[in-house]
Amino acid sequence: MKERSDAFVFGAQTPTEAMDPGIVRQILGYGDSIMMVRVVFDEGAVGYVHKHFHTQVCYVESGEFDVTIDGVEQRLGPGDSFHVQPNLEHGAVCRKPGVLIDVFSPVREDFLEAREAK
Amino acid sequence: MKERSDAFVFGAQTPTEAMDPGIVRQILGYGDSIMMVRVVFDEGAVGYVHKHFHTQVCYVESGEFDVTIDGVEQRLGPGDSFHVQPNLEHGAVCRKPGVLIDVFSPVREDFLEAREAK
Repeated sequence: MKERSDAFVFGAQTPTEAMDPGIVRQILGYGDSIMMVRVVFDEGAVGYVHKHFHTQVCYVESGEFDVTIDGVEQRLGPGDSFHVQPNLEHGAVCRKPGVLIDVFSPVREDFLEAREAK
Repeated sequence: MKERSDAFVFGAQTPTEAMDPGIVRQILGYGDSIMMVRVVFDEGAVGYVHKHFHTQVCYVESGEFDVTIDGVEQRLGPGDSFHVQPNLEHGAVCRKPGVLIDVFSPVREDFLEAREAK
């Protein structure tokens, strides 16, 4: 498992992984306590409510999402963002197909392990 | 200076700041060791080579950029990403107008201070 990504990570040359139905994940730049991940959602795809010890910030590149954080739901669109404190429950439902840019600190080693296992 | 942003950060309601010529910055979600920032570049705008102790990852939402990290230059476009280790010199020149999503760990307190000072 590489401690960090290359300095430059080209989207077209980087593997994608099918996750829950309608969700495709691509690990972008990572290392030194931070990891960036691009997630493509089909309409209706559900990122189930979950929690983890990592801090998370997220940017809505495109589409529309109903995002729930600690029981509060908001509709987010392009240019919007959210921040999830460690161990806070959160999830997202895709209302219009789109892309989220998720960033975690520290690195999601579970994501790297899952990618290696495929 | 707020320790963290609101959980939900709506782009249309969030202040932007003019930086170097042709560069506009908008602080998105932040807190708990991580900060997300949206940066809009005009063609030809220059993010001068600099360094900082924060780890950085960046996503190219749109446009084209010549990005230099530790003396190595690459042309990046939509969907590409880069990762900068702490204290490594890096910079970017915008070749086609576009948007970068920068993420730092820890939080860039200097950005918050600059925003408050305006």
